[in-house]
Amino acid sequence: MPELRQNYFTKEWVIIATERARRPEELATHRAAKVIPRFVEACPFCPGNENKTPPEVMRTEADGKWQVRVVANKFAALSPDIQPIRTIHRSRRSMAGFGVHDVIVDTPDHSQTMALMSDAHVANVLRTYKKLFDNLSLDPRIAHITIFKNHGGDAGASLEHPHSQLIATPVISHQVRERFHQALAHYDEYGECMFCQMIEEEMTEQSRVVLSTDRFVAFQPYASPTPFATHIFPRRHTSSFQDISPTEITDLATVLRTVLAKLYIGLENPDFNFTLRSAPIEYVGVKHFHWYVSIIPRLTRVAGFELGSGMFINTVLPEAAAEFLRNTKVEMAAGV
Amino acid sequence: MPELRQNYFTKEWVIIATERARRPEELATHRAAKVIPRFVEACPFCPGNENKTPPEVMRTEADGKWQVRVVANKFAALSPDIQPIRTIHRSRRSMAGFGVHDVIVDTPDHSQTMALMSDAHVANVLRTYKKLFDNLSLDPRIAHITIFKNHGGDAGASLEHPHSQLIATPVISHQVRERFHQALAHYDEYGECMFCQMIEEEMTEQSRVVLSTDRFVAFQPYASPTPFATHIFPRRHTSSFQDISPTEITDLATVLRTVLAKLYIGLENPDFNFTLRSAPIEYVGVKHFHWYVSIIPRLTRVAGFELGSGMFINTVLPEAAAEFLRNTKVEMAAGV
Repeated sequence: MPELRQNYFTKEWVIIATERARRPEELATHRAAKVIPRFVEACPFCPGNENKTPPEVMRTEADGKWQVRVVANKFAALSPDIQPIRTIHRSRRSMAGFGVHDVIVDTPDHSQTMALMSDAHVANVLRTYKKLFDNLSLDPRIAHITIFKNHGGDAGASLEHPHSQLIATPVISHQVRERFHQALAHYDEYGECMFCQMIEEEMTEQSRVVLSTDRFVAFQPYASPTPFATHIFPRRHTSSFQDISPTEITDLATVLRTVLAKLYIGLENPDFNFTLRSAPIEYVGVKHFHWYVSIIPRLTRVAGFELGSGMFINTVLPEAAAEFLRNTKVEMAAGV
Repeated sequence: MPELRQNYFTKEWVIIATERARRPEELATHRAAKVIPRFVEACPFCPGNENKTPPEVMRTEADGKWQVRVVANKFAALSPDIQPIRTIHRSRRSMAGFGVHDVIVDTPDHSQTMALMSDAHVANVLRTYKKLFDNLSLDPRIAHITIFKNHGGDAGASLEHPHSQLIATPVISHQVRERFHQALAHYDEYGECMFCQMIEEEMTEQSRVVLSTDRFVAFQPYASPTPFATHIFPRRHTSSFQDISPTEITDLATVLRTVLAKLYIGLENPDFNFTLRSAPIEYVGVKHFHWYVSIIPRLTRVAGFELGSGMFINTVLPEAAAEFLRNTKVEMAAGV
């Protein structure tokens, strides 16, 4: 029997279409393993080609070589060199395109992928994210910072070398504003962060939990809009990724890498996005929002119904996806 | 210089990324024309295979044969045979999956596409949409009706035979609710439908208009989230597609078919979705909402930034897209 589920946080309804239900394993890509070289002469992100990128923003070194490197995006969507001046003329509202668009080169190794990295290396990538966050949040022109990864062509990646991106904008999107209003209304009504409530419920029910540690929990959202969408929440209340502690970074690296490895093995290296959903700068410290990592495998296509109604159809039961990922065994990463 | 633009209706910000700007013609698919047969033995929508579909809902005939045929979707996302009973258990809100999911077979000709049909045939498809709307709006369990078309694999189409779909849901999506609130706030503030204002402004400026008639105007939205997204609005105020008059149906058929033909020729048969964005049943007749057709060519991929921030990056200036489509000449459809 098909079921409609409402996302407690966003209030969006999702159709869980059991009549067209697919077993989780049916969504595996069945993609032939591609041999990717560790170094590509023409790749701007490979070691030795550092002069092919825009100026370096920062780097993390290991054994005298860079391990994670941040550069300005050569094809930046926004520019740091203009002022965010707003113009309003009747229905036409615009702002000069101020912003920051950086690329985080996750590793010097062109053939690597985060699912197969060491936990320690993933922790270094996360530390780099935090340093960027810390630096940019000092600029009063910046309202919101989005850090994200596109893995594979269906996820919008145009370069093969493993990398993440950061875009800092002078505005907060309406979607984020709206979600904050809802979360605040909940807090005012119940005196509790709605995400803290959700985490407690997920930990009690366990049916949608993929894995948990003392500090983080990864689960399939109850009203997941797409198959295998996975959220990783810190278990303590904190509104911004900026608040993450050194111990939490180590723990998150293990949880994130393990979830990515389960997707990599279970679904055969699917294209995916992940994004840090953290409070806009002006909301850091609020009691009603809780930051999280959202991982979105790109296994299905958004079609006309979704575009026309704002409602998604999900063909995999979140509980079945969670069980499948729990049962997908991954080896612990070796070495450093 | 990049620019941020805010959608007056949805309040969403969009980045118009001129640094990575692409000329409109660069987005053409360069797809080799594929020869599609007019009849496919295994296709459930081809004439003679009527017994392979679920029961027929309605048909429109011409010359003693069906020209447009509506059937229940064999893989329906929702079922008409269950009651929309709601359950709330803390954060988990669900409803039994009541709803209607129909397929509109646009034509008996497997090789046809709406861009190349006659205006009279497109008008018959639109009349069929209206009849379905009229019938379903009488069921008090139905809150919202979405009619849409998926053309091509990137737009989510799984069957080649030209068809549209209808999904009627017992709930209104949060996205739609939210937009209605905004439109109502505007009406309360200015005593005017915000869409009527936008239409007047677009008609005055002309720079984003693709074409207009006495009754309809097709334009690129000022803060278009994706390249070549095209809206077709009725010029008189009306909240629901159900209100469309016989003359307006004829006019809309010409405008819709012409826009689709411009996209077909100018961008070489791109995959696309279109959807009728019409008021939910309970809002039919309101002064603050205005129905429209939204055509979304699927030329780019949604990536991590969009998913993480709720903000889109558009690499084609809407004014450039409009000019390109104005300059793309299409022949008038022949015959009936």
